[in-house]
Amino acid sequence: MPGAEFWYEFASSYSYPAALRVAALADERGVSLVWRPFLLGPIFAAQGWRDSPFNIYPAKGRYMWRDLERTCEAMGIPFRRPEPFPQPSLLAARVALALEGDQRVRFSRRVFAAEFGEGMAIGDRGTLAALIAACGPDPAATLERAESDANKALLKAECARAAAIGIIGAPCLVTADGEVFWGNDRLEQGLDWAARAG
Amino acid sequence: MPGAEFWYEFASSYSYPAALRVAALADERGVSLVWRPFLLGPIFAAQGWRDSPFNIYPAKGRYMWRDLERTCEAMGIPFRRPEPFPQPSLLAARVALALEGDQRVRFSRRVFAAEFGEGMAIGDRGTLAALIAACGPDPAATLERAESDANKALLKAECARAAAIGIIGAPCLVTADGEVFWGNDRLEQGLDWAARAG
Repeated sequence: MPGAEFWYEFASSYSYPAALRVAALADERGVSLVWRPFLLGPIFAAQGWRDSPFNIYPAKGRYMWRDLERTCEAMGIPFRRPEPFPQPSLLAARVALALEGDQRVRFSRRVFAAEFGEGMAIGDRGTLAALIAACGPDPAATLERAESDANKALLKAECARAAAIGIIGAPCLVTADGEVFWGNDRLEQGLDWAARAG
Repeated sequence: MPGAEFWYEFASSYSYPAALRVAALADERGVSLVWRPFLLGPIFAAQGWRDSPFNIYPAKGRYMWRDLERTCEAMGIPFRRPEPFPQPSLLAARVALALEGDQRVRFSRRVFAAEFGEGMAIGDRGTLAALIAACGPDPAATLERAESDANKALLKAECARAAAIGIIGAPCLVTADGEVFWGNDRLEQGLDWAARAG
């Protein structure tokens, strides 16, 4: 079965519709997906950015919010802009990485839906605990594992890996032969490539 | 007949596949297109950029060139990276604006094909004269009209208009109800919107 990696960042606005779309698109094409949460912070810092480019360049931010609103409307999913943006995503990323397989997928989708569908604060520990519980695992044990040194180191390694393969934003679809497709609007193209590359 | 505007910049890499795709996509949807050449320079300068962001941020540039290569391959059109990038596009933009209707469309497509399909220098006056001649009009008279004060002022006004409607890159598809869709990969979505907005 052909495979691909779905790289996403909880603070990334376009990762929201992508996380809600990508599994069905991969299934349609017979592509198996690995969900890889990471952080854009180190990648942006390497460009000299200490904030989201959507904040640094307000015209770009205005475009993105309107575009995201249209995208969500077309998909029939709720949209509510979280304040502040970007949301602190470190703990959510650690939790996602500490979960595996389907639990990681379900947790990740719930985080995005809470953040960009309901405008909830995903940096909040209690909010994350409730989202973990809704997916099945024990919140306290999961948070403890998420904040273990081993898991923290794993997330750092994932971020370094993202930079190394040329990821410059989120979401990205990465194929087994090393092609990177950036953006919610490029999921189909990336998955088509993955299906052909086998 | 519903209408939309196609805003493009001759120095913009993604405007190349867009310029070769957009007419057929608009026809399929019964949308009439106005081709509006403009310059990104003033818009980038307002962000504090004195060069293409693809040069300022090399990781972004690497991604774009590979992505453009894939895009051209999928479309079955030639690709050759022009050196230097970006090419000086002022004179080509002035010529395109001095031409009307179908002549503007044909000239614009030829410029993009020469620049990104053959790697030709589109800042060169002789090259532009040959491309004008290939579209029908008299090169000398067209270049004179292109460089008239009235046409220079018109191009400045077009650039100001682009900034005012929220254009932040090229190409953009702009609908009659003021929606902006940025990117070669958003032409279909923009034209679908235009067709619905009717």
